[in-house]
Amino acid sequence: MEIQTTPSTAVANGEPHIAPLDPYKLIVNLSKNLKALPITDDAHFGEIKTDHMLVINYEPTTGWSAPEIKPYGPLSLDPACSCFHYCPNVFEGMKAYIGPNGEPRLFWPHKNMERLARSAERVALPPFDTDALLVLVKRLITVEARWIPSKPGHSLYVRPTIIGTRPMLGVAASDSAMIYVILSPVGRYFNGDAKGIPILAVGHSVRSWPGGTGGHKLGLNYAPGLLPQRIAEKQGYSQILWLFGEDSRITEASGMNFFVVVQSDDGDLDIITPPLDGMILPGLTRASCLELLDAHTQGKTVLPNIPASTRLHTHERVLTMHELVAWSAEGKLLEAFCVGTAVVVAPVGRIGFEGKDVVLPTEDAGLGLVGKALWERVVDIQSGRVPWEDWSVTCE
Amino acid sequence: MEIQTTPSTAVANGEPHIAPLDPYKLIVNLSKNLKALPITDDAHFGEIKTDHMLVINYEPTTGWSAPEIKPYGPLSLDPACSCFHYCPNVFEGMKAYIGPNGEPRLFWPHKNMERLARSAERVALPPFDTDALLVLVKRLITVEARWIPSKPGHSLYVRPTIIGTRPMLGVAASDSAMIYVILSPVGRYFNGDAKGIPILAVGHSVRSWPGGTGGHKLGLNYAPGLLPQRIAEKQGYSQILWLFGEDSRITEASGMNFFVVVQSDDGDLDIITPPLDGMILPGLTRASCLELLDAHTQGKTVLPNIPASTRLHTHERVLTMHELVAWSAEGKLLEAFCVGTAVVVAPVGRIGFEGKDVVLPTEDAGLGLVGKALWERVVDIQSGRVPWEDWSVTCE
Repeated sequence: MEIQTTPSTAVANGEPHIAPLDPYKLIVNLSKNLKALPITDDAHFGEIKTDHMLVINYEPTTGWSAPEIKPYGPLSLDPACSCFHYCPNVFEGMKAYIGPNGEPRLFWPHKNMERLARSAERVALPPFDTDALLVLVKRLITVEARWIPSKPGHSLYVRPTIIGTRPMLGVAASDSAMIYVILSPVGRYFNGDAKGIPILAVGHSVRSWPGGTGGHKLGLNYAPGLLPQRIAEKQGYSQILWLFGEDSRITEASGMNFFVVVQSDDGDLDIITPPLDGMILPGLTRASCLELLDAHTQGKTVLPNIPASTRLHTHERVLTMHELVAWSAEGKLLEAFCVGTAVVVAPVGRIGFEGKDVVLPTEDAGLGLVGKALWERVVDIQSGRVPWEDWSVTCE
Repeated sequence: MEIQTTPSTAVANGEPHIAPLDPYKLIVNLSKNLKALPITDDAHFGEIKTDHMLVINYEPTTGWSAPEIKPYGPLSLDPACSCFHYCPNVFEGMKAYIGPNGEPRLFWPHKNMERLARSAERVALPPFDTDALLVLVKRLITVEARWIPSKPGHSLYVRPTIIGTRPMLGVAASDSAMIYVILSPVGRYFNGDAKGIPILAVGHSVRSWPGGTGGHKLGLNYAPGLLPQRIAEKQGYSQILWLFGEDSRITEASGMNFFVVVQSDDGDLDIITPPLDGMILPGLTRASCLELLDAHTQGKTVLPNIPASTRLHTHERVLTMHELVAWSAEGKLLEAFCVGTAVVVAPVGRIGFEGKDVVLPTEDAGLGLVGKALWERVVDIQSGRVPWEDWSVTCE
């Protein structure tokens, strides 16, 4: 029997070769019929898709397939695939901007890739090389650069997704998977966002729990909120603020982290957000807001329209609705806002709780002093107009 | 302007006509290349699919499409569909048997349809007529009757599924949906089921909680258990027994309800299962087992190989691992078993808890007195050999 010293097939040393995710194998298959760019801004968030998508498949015997950028179109999947039945589906939200020199830019993208890998691990999807995927995401954005809106506050939303594709009905980890990335040009997430959004605090339906999955970006964390959100909308609220426990502690608005600004007795401002206790998503916009607020107070930067002498004290701590009610009654509750990739920073106008509304002073004006400063600075950094650390990177 | 008295288009009285789910609109498109029936039993559960599937689509402007029975094949879906991102996906598990006269039979199918409708409502999917869907499910099974195994304990597994198909990335209720039903001939769920299955009690990862969705049959309840199950398998256990709370109360094994049989001091048997507190699935096999056990004790039937004089007392109550440990130490813990559509009744051999195993007397023998009686009687009723109430219905 002849022994091959260098394996020429998919089997080496009797073990199947599990191919890693390899950007050098990329196949680019461009669309021959490019779509017209949208003229108006009135599409729903994520309704318009660009011309191309990135697709990579994983099979347990062969590993990751050659990545392919190809015309945007339907996925063809066996009806028994895990993604439909047991929901091992994870995703990320990122935004691409056009920088000052016309270059496509991403914001903190390796953080999204790392979180995506943690999400995949949590639902037992196959591991992948996060750097390799980021190379491919950048390549896709470069191919689709004409879709990146230049209008201020607008961007190209990037949705990396991994779904379980094991085509069997027994309940087991999905040993097949598909990574795909789709893109959508987006404006502001909320219509009429000059005013603060009305939000309903909900405690009877519970988003997450200690030992649950609320700290990971899993698709399955969202469906339970769809019915409560529909009910809230009928009551005049546009989002849910999820509470936990008998003390009505605030966790997050699904898909968005929550902040309040409170006047402190010494004239400074306290900016409070719930802690990363495993029940809320570790948001990247949340992390960037906290860092920028601290940088202002430490004198490393001056946030727009906030005096350098104004001290902004950040607190990651348990925050209850009862505290908000008390601060509001005392006139100390200055602002509430939600942050996330899709919204960046969105003002909260009022918070429904136990049949009454906590009304924010900024209800009609929209973002207050701190929220507005954060929105401006974060978008400036994201679009490359203001450099900050290594947060904004080009796609070249 | 001429007024039409009977609307001839999809618009009546200026309102779009939202079509209900209508079995009379069924289109049957039979495969021209029927598959060979499987010869051996060694496929994974739900690996083999039959020749056809049932598909019905819902769009918000038109309602339910004409149902179609067509060759089994891949679904074609926009990559932005809700099912991949936010997981508003629900399903049922049913089993079709061949009755004594060769007729296809289903077990309590309207209960599955009602539970499916409740599941759909919980994740804000469009409503549907449960009777209409059942007519279509029966029709599909009739078309596929040659696939129903006649071997004892084998059956045709039926998987009605509803997925959200709204093709937009904004987080909102899916106002588009697809119902589909696929079929798979199955044997016993667990291999080597002559012995009791080893099961690991897990409390650090939590399947459900008050205000959560554990009481509904949602796809999203399953993915969080895939990683804990993989870890348990590496420790020699094949399933998870989900605990809740500081008192280590037993909830369910994912996809299966849990029962124990305890020797009572007066010589009777206590059969205990956790209550329907919203954290466990209201299983149909669970309900049928409880009813049959009560019927035995009430003299309405005699379960196989259990003396008519043996009183079986059922209890739906909080059940903790500490109780199981104590009963085991006292020699009173006679049996533990899991029940569900896929397994019917599966014996538990040992339960890992806090680093030790609670070993059941039936570990090597498989099902004990009560579990075996239930398995036999439930399968006899399901296959139409023993009539009981209206539980088994024909598909004609």
